[in-house]
Amino acid sequence: MRELYVIGIGAGDPDQVTMQAVKAMRRADVFFVIGKGDRKRELVEVRTAILAEHVDGPHRIVEIADPPRDRTPADYTEVVRDWHERRAELLEAAFGEVDGTGAILVWGDPALYDSTLRMLDHVRERGRVRFDYTVIPGVTSVAALAARHRMVLHRVGEPVHITTGRKLREDGLGAGSTVVMLDGDCSFTELTDPDVHIWWGAYLGMPDETLIEGPLREVAARIVTRRAELRAAKGWIMDVYLLRRT
Amino acid sequence: MRELYVIGIGAGDPDQVTMQAVKAMRRADVFFVIGKGDRKRELVEVRTAILAEHVDGPHRIVEIADPPRDRTPADYTEVVRDWHERRAELLEAAFGEVDGTGAILVWGDPALYDSTLRMLDHVRERGRVRFDYTVIPGVTSVAALAARHRMVLHRVGEPVHITTGRKLREDGLGAGSTVVMLDGDCSFTELTDPDVHIWWGAYLGMPDETLIEGPLREVAARIVTRRAELRAAKGWIMDVYLLRRT
Ligand SMILES: C[S@@+](CC[C@H](N)C(=O)[O-])C[C@H]1O[C@@H](n2cnc3c(N)ncnc32)[C@H](O)[C@@H]1O
Ligand SMILES: C[S@@+](CC[C@H](N)C(=O)[O-])C[C@H]1O[C@@H](n2cnc3c(N)ncnc32)[C@H](O)[C@@H]1O
Repeated sequence: MRELYVIGIGAGDPDQVTMQAVKAMRRADVFFVIGKGDRKRELVEVRTAILAEHVDGPHRIVEIADPPRDRTPADYTEVVRDWHERRAELLEAAFGEVDGTGAILVWGDPALYDSTLRMLDHVRERGRVRFDYTVIPGVTSVAALAARHRMVLHRVGEPVHITTGRKLREDGLGAGSTVVMLDGDCSFTELTDPDVHIWWGAYLGMPDETLIEGPLREVAARIVTRRAELRAAKGWIMDVYLLRRT
Repeated sequence: MRELYVIGIGAGDPDQVTMQAVKAMRRADVFFVIGKGDRKRELVEVRTAILAEHVDGPHRIVEIADPPRDRTPADYTEVVRDWHERRAELLEAAFGEVDGTGAILVWGDPALYDSTLRMLDHVRERGRVRFDYTVIPGVTSVAALAARHRMVLHRVGEPVHITTGRKLREDGLGAGSTVVMLDGDCSFTELTDPDVHIWWGAYLGMPDETLIEGPLREVAARIVTRRAELRAAKGWIMDVYLLRRT
């Protein structure tokens, strides 16, 4: 493989793809699509929709299924590490077969809670396949959330903290505003701060997009219920939210 | 004005514009370009390059100069508020003249250290012009920084904190990784933490893009010097960096 593009494709709406991403895709001979399992078929479909719309030339799509992963492990860091290792092996095998330019389409932006770049560093360190790579930044789900709520992430001059559901439970709210991603457990229900506002969004940019916003103590129960309903109906959910003390 | 699009255009490379942004631009009759003064002419030029490439239909460009602003005020919040007020008045006058769809092109993503959305809320509250608006998210300079350094913003499962130079000086490093924007003073030089790594980028995505990365105590002086040289040569600089304890 001569070169690899790691391409952020935006967080749900196929039109969130950038011109830069489209140009990189047009240079690629092989696309590695890292799957999310059957239940999240829609996430793979956004990628194939993007390819179908923007890439005309001959190209090959290689789907690489995610290795299974314990989502509620005792030792989070260790389990994630091991999972990366297994993904690296799958990619190594796939890369070895490519003669030309490869591309990996990454959900949102490759720098935000995505393992692709770490995985590539790891594959390069193992030294069994050689390649150089370029990263194309993308629109994050954080930007998508703020856009749909037509809001700025932080108050004037204040910071914004981006964290996970797990870390929110451990550390609570930061100073300024807090964005929470990767939260399977509605961790906002465990906050004890009295006056917090929440801006919540699920399936942003996708047909089932759902937004709820309001004082946390007034809307928390509604979000929990709505989230459970949506998740049950579709089999999966992806949501992100912003919290701020009022 | 029937509708207004607030469009994130990416943080420097005209190709960072999304398809969604291009489609919104094509629907607009009037573009409001909020200027940054003559010294930052290049920032206006990125916008006009994007328009020239993607918008064919008839359209009007209305340049609105930023009101002057004290960049080192004693009361930061108050000065920023007053500045927003004066910008709101300028926009009100400009909006009142539009019959059709308007668009404002915003650097990076409209949700990150940009005053456009707050300004629009303010204009709507004043109630002198009526309009509805839609926000199109964009690629941030944070994503651009990470992409050029081919890195993830945070360690596995850890948070990332996005803050300003001023707040870094006041509060120091957060837990996890810290991204610093709007720092005219190389505030990283004031950190006392012994082991910090820095990933710095100036003019990201633009012809003068400059990247420096390394242990802070080894590269801090080099960044300070390089930044001063670049700033002197061009008359302005825009830089952003990520800090992380090692
Ligand atoms: C593995 S992370 C990937 C984030 C991605 N790299 C980005 O830039 O947004 C997945 C998490 O991102 C958030 N997310 C991504 N896409 C989303 C969407 N369309 N709607 C709501 N949340 C989304 C959710 O918090 C989800 O748990
Ligand atoms: C007023 S804020 C606007 C941020 C923008 N909305 C975004 O999403 O990146 C301006 C700050 O963003 C950062 N910035 C924006 N574009 C940049 C670029 N091309 N290179 C380096 N820093 C940039 C700098 O920290 C600068 O002080």
